[in-house]
Amino acid sequence: MYLMRIGAPGAEKPAVRVDDTHYIDVSDLTPDFDERFFAQGGVALLADRVANGEIRELAGERIGAPIARPHQILCIGLNYSDHAAETGQAVPAEPILFTKSPNTLVGPYDDVRIPRGATKTDWEVELGIVIGKRTSYLDSVEEARDAIAGYCVVNDVSERAFQMERGGQWSKGKSAETFNPAGPWLVTPDEIADVTSLGIWLDVNGVRRQTGTTATMIFDPYVIVHHLSQFMVLEPGDLINTGTPPGVGMGHDPQIWLQPGDVMELGIDGLGSQRQHVQGPR
Amino acid sequence: MYLMRIGAPGAEKPAVRVDDTHYIDVSDLTPDFDERFFAQGGVALLADRVANGEIRELAGERIGAPIARPHQILCIGLNYSDHAAETGQAVPAEPILFTKSPNTLVGPYDDVRIPRGATKTDWEVELGIVIGKRTSYLDSVEEARDAIAGYCVVNDVSERAFQMERGGQWSKGKSAETFNPAGPWLVTPDEIADVTSLGIWLDVNGVRRQTGTTATMIFDPYVIVHHLSQFMVLEPGDLINTGTPPGVGMGHDPQIWLQPGDVMELGIDGLGSQRQHVQGPR
Repeated sequence: MYLMRIGAPGAEKPAVRVDDTHYIDVSDLTPDFDERFFAQGGVALLADRVANGEIRELAGERIGAPIARPHQILCIGLNYSDHAAETGQAVPAEPILFTKSPNTLVGPYDDVRIPRGATKTDWEVELGIVIGKRTSYLDSVEEARDAIAGYCVVNDVSERAFQMERGGQWSKGKSAETFNPAGPWLVTPDEIADVTSLGIWLDVNGVRRQTGTTATMIFDPYVIVHHLSQFMVLEPGDLINTGTPPGVGMGHDPQIWLQPGDVMELGIDGLGSQRQHVQGPR
Repeated sequence: MYLMRIGAPGAEKPAVRVDDTHYIDVSDLTPDFDERFFAQGGVALLADRVANGEIRELAGERIGAPIARPHQILCIGLNYSDHAAETGQAVPAEPILFTKSPNTLVGPYDDVRIPRGATKTDWEVELGIVIGKRTSYLDSVEEARDAIAGYCVVNDVSERAFQMERGGQWSKGKSAETFNPAGPWLVTPDEIADVTSLGIWLDVNGVRRQTGTTATMIFDPYVIVHHLSQFMVLEPGDLINTGTPPGVGMGHDPQIWLQPGDVMELGIDGLGSQRQHVQGPR
């Protein structure tokens, strides 16, 4: 199943994708794809409607992020072996955790806005995990499969000067408004043959900048969810950005930073693609 | 005004304190002291009721955290000059930001639970700021006064091994369940003569461990709110832990860590006091 949210910012209606131009409205079954929806059973609540519901045509409406603002956006740093090699950094022994402000979440085609005072704004295409139920102290990595509601494309937009040069801890450079486009869909695990072997890519202004595969992840999604569950309680609907493959602007020589007017396009095999215009500070 | 929440976990009712044993119920005016409450005007909605409402007696009910689970718990590290000196670290040039999982929030008298695998669980009494309205790009430090709904006591419980020795970024050691007792009250700014000159203390098992004053804060609450507003949008009801004075367990020689059965008592002049029993892992 492919969950999506359609409508103006703050007024999105939950829907299930049929194909690129058709969907089934499920807003009478749940007000949103939020913590309560996932806690109450998630996609199981939608099965009958998807089999028998009225199919509607997408007519140019905005596509929002596929989930409501979550309790947390957790992020894993330096999680691709080829990206670690590119930056000259050691492969981490355990997942590196940092966080983004949950209100950075926007839709897959919304504008990304460079923050005031920024000089080093960068892109990061990533596989996003959405948590399906309250999860704590998982006994095994295998159990993590049952805790995952689905996957989506995310762009973990980052301001490197804020992240690295402004007094410590990465969240300061990860939390500006519009810094976490997600979607277009939340794809349930049954639709994905092997989440640990998906092509992943990002273009800036039509030039391929990131190319990779989730096969070079150091910690796969199940290891990540199991690991995080030892340190905190994951809530239904929480979003985890799982790290980025090689080719971020910081990794180029000379380094490349986003400028107003740039266009980012990014995607993951089977999870769809995004496109964002970059705007200057408001 | 002193806001408080009374009742079982997850079923707290919003109230206004009259004195140590009396309160006025305001649950018909707002379902909770949450993002919507603060966004709609906050304490201004309660003024008439406080002047004319029925006074009830507290009869042993649980006191919860004084606000609902916020969008974010933001934390400032190493923010007292005497604490920085104690640890031998340089005074930071800018506020150090890290985050805690919002679901760490518990009441001021609730148990604190040591997480599984923990070896270095520590205390941190702190002044908490609650944001009163959506806040972004404040033009001046002075403007931050209007963005603050009130203040409360918080215990920024920390697992130092998870924070420092498990792969980077402090949030990994700050986010275990029960790790952020807050309250008993959210005190509005008009009740506090000078928030930059409040005594602050913490005892473990009756022994004074932390003693300080908010006068030795490196970055005061207005500077912190102004600073953070340059990097992210603060939402109504967001909680900011503003750093701890000298005397944490990590700062002692030899170091002291919390053990099951320990009792923490902590407080700030005019903001009330807390008391937590420490439990072993579940």
